[in-house]
Amino acid sequence: MKNPPNYPQLEDNAPLLLGPGPSNVPPRVLQAMAAPMMGHLDPIFLDVMDRIQHLLRYTFQTENSLTIPVSGTGSAAMETALSNMIEPGDPVLVCISGFFGERMEEMCRRYRAEVEIIRRPMGEVFTIEEIEQALKSRPAKVVAIVHGETSTGALQPLEGMADLVHAHGGLLVVDAVATLGGNPVLVDEWDLDVCYSGSQKCLSCPPGLGPITLGPRAEKTLAERETSVANWYFDMSGMQKYWGKERTYHHTAPISSNLALYEGLRIVAEEGLEARWARHQASAEMLWEGLQGLDMTMVVPEAYRMTTVTTVRVPEGVDEAAVRGRLREEYNIAIAGGLGDMKGKVWRIGLMGHSARKRNVRRLIGALDKILHG
Amino acid sequence: MKNPPNYPQLEDNAPLLLGPGPSNVPPRVLQAMAAPMMGHLDPIFLDVMDRIQHLLRYTFQTENSLTIPVSGTGSAAMETALSNMIEPGDPVLVCISGFFGERMEEMCRRYRAEVEIIRRPMGEVFTIEEIEQALKSRPAKVVAIVHGETSTGALQPLEGMADLVHAHGGLLVVDAVATLGGNPVLVDEWDLDVCYSGSQKCLSCPPGLGPITLGPRAEKTLAERETSVANWYFDMSGMQKYWGKERTYHHTAPISSNLALYEGLRIVAEEGLEARWARHQASAEMLWEGLQGLDMTMVVPEAYRMTTVTTVRVPEGVDEAAVRGRLREEYNIAIAGGLGDMKGKVWRIGLMGHSARKRNVRRLIGALDKILHG
Repeated sequence: MKNPPNYPQLEDNAPLLLGPGPSNVPPRVLQAMAAPMMGHLDPIFLDVMDRIQHLLRYTFQTENSLTIPVSGTGSAAMETALSNMIEPGDPVLVCISGFFGERMEEMCRRYRAEVEIIRRPMGEVFTIEEIEQALKSRPAKVVAIVHGETSTGALQPLEGMADLVHAHGGLLVVDAVATLGGNPVLVDEWDLDVCYSGSQKCLSCPPGLGPITLGPRAEKTLAERETSVANWYFDMSGMQKYWGKERTYHHTAPISSNLALYEGLRIVAEEGLEARWARHQASAEMLWEGLQGLDMTMVVPEAYRMTTVTTVRVPEGVDEAAVRGRLREEYNIAIAGGLGDMKGKVWRIGLMGHSARKRNVRRLIGALDKILHG
Repeated sequence: MKNPPNYPQLEDNAPLLLGPGPSNVPPRVLQAMAAPMMGHLDPIFLDVMDRIQHLLRYTFQTENSLTIPVSGTGSAAMETALSNMIEPGDPVLVCISGFFGERMEEMCRRYRAEVEIIRRPMGEVFTIEEIEQALKSRPAKVVAIVHGETSTGALQPLEGMADLVHAHGGLLVVDAVATLGGNPVLVDEWDLDVCYSGSQKCLSCPPGLGPITLGPRAEKTLAERETSVANWYFDMSGMQKYWGKERTYHHTAPISSNLALYEGLRIVAEEGLEARWARHQASAEMLWEGLQGLDMTMVVPEAYRMTTVTTVRVPEGVDEAAVRGRLREEYNIAIAGGLGDMKGKVWRIGLMGHSARKRNVRRLIGALDKILHG
């Protein structure tokens, strides 16, 4: 027999989370996580599954029947979206302007799509015309794009895009991991075919669930596949029977995480999406003003800037990691550095869900002021 | 704008969980789930990730470096095991004697393996000779087998099996979803190449994580793949860099679920595996005696019966669903019915992890006695 390790219980030292996710989780949601375990076929849990779907439809602003949380993180929802829509050889257009666009491309290749990509520099967004041009030169069955690029803070306008994609016979798959519940995401109004998110960003639940919704075109595409989905766990036709009336066992849903999501979505519904979007907007504007007051400049122009993740340039001569370290050590505030090309050059500041409050902005700006000038 | 749904907060009505998972979660683990959120790159969480790997190595009884929890349920760990070991066209042997063997076959087909299957009736196990015969007629790169079939309650002996598989140039992949932490699972002693489990069975954590371990042969097979793993989320080479020293971002780990797993594994280490196995054994023996005292017979002979899941025949003329309903309604005890061919004919009674206690057996036997005879 090998010896059992002996470790102490953890101490609580949780910081104010102002990075690009996870965000701080409200006590009510934490409490829901700690509810005694119940069976995955318990009538109470089955009822919660129905309510979650209803609450998610509100949050996604959709009537789509197939609207569920995938039993994995936001990246799992991305994988679900792409693997269910793509069959080997399918032409796919991926729009890349940051880290998560790259990830979409990688997944599409693994699903053996014929991938074409168009690129914009990090921090920029695509115009409808650019996508139209790409589709004119080669139609695509799936167009994949990120709504809010967590790696850059740029918000991709989506109005009118689905019409264009549909006119070329394609499906529009949208990554709303960093926007759902913080920026408007209007699935029905914008006619998105597939849209997915993560639980730990603007929904302020623990990470581990990836809400996804499939519109009628996407559901039809799934039903008419000629090949099986290339994996089993993320096959939406299996999940559909589990979350739908049949209740056919697929896998055991992460029960506690779903109880937490239920409570988190109840909070979204109580606050109301418009009020929630306005709160994100107001705290972001206060942040931008505060950063400008400290002589810093934002990477993304205000016209297409996310309110939920702000990238700001590190002032000349400042050691960005040292500042982040002091924020965490001395002020118990966590923000993030840059990804990819932006590493060392920017900070990424998240104001997501429960964390998107003016009092948190004041605390951060005050701390930054002291560290940089104090 | 669509209207926000208005739902009440849930009431607590959690039953004694004596089905084949999830099991009851100890209060300490529930409390860990409710810890304030922290970042996935927080030094405290990174430290917890290291400790979890160490604790999992103890639980799997292995020195395997690549030993981590997959960010999904036990089925996600199954998918990880198979998709990482299989390339298109690989010959695979799947041993099927129940529902989860069938699932393994389904996954192998999706990964485009050349699948051969051998079958035993539900409730039975394979002999080494049967597997040897199959490998002699066609060698396999991967042999996949279930250690404890949750659908039947049969415990597959594994001693000597890896030697046989290795002698034929293959890898042995073992499903220990229903046994790890309850029945002995000796990864190094038995020389298993891949072994995986789920958090919600004998580890008594919430569902949502799938511990997995890869031995040296499996790690080499992964490193020498000619094709990418056919999905992205479950690619162990990505997870390896995230959980290893590089800390390269892959996906955001389900933080709360991992804090819970840390606490659950600490409990395993405190109790010690031998004491834990003995507790499962003692409560199972008491259950079997109690059921026999009620004139019921077990499906699986004692020689290869799991202690963690017992299948017992429903007495002649008894409505099995009605009895389960009364157990749940009147006694707040949850057990499960049969799957597949066994539906309506058996009950499945789990004594897993925290639930595997004699006081729970007494409560169940007393309740069954009253319902059946009282």
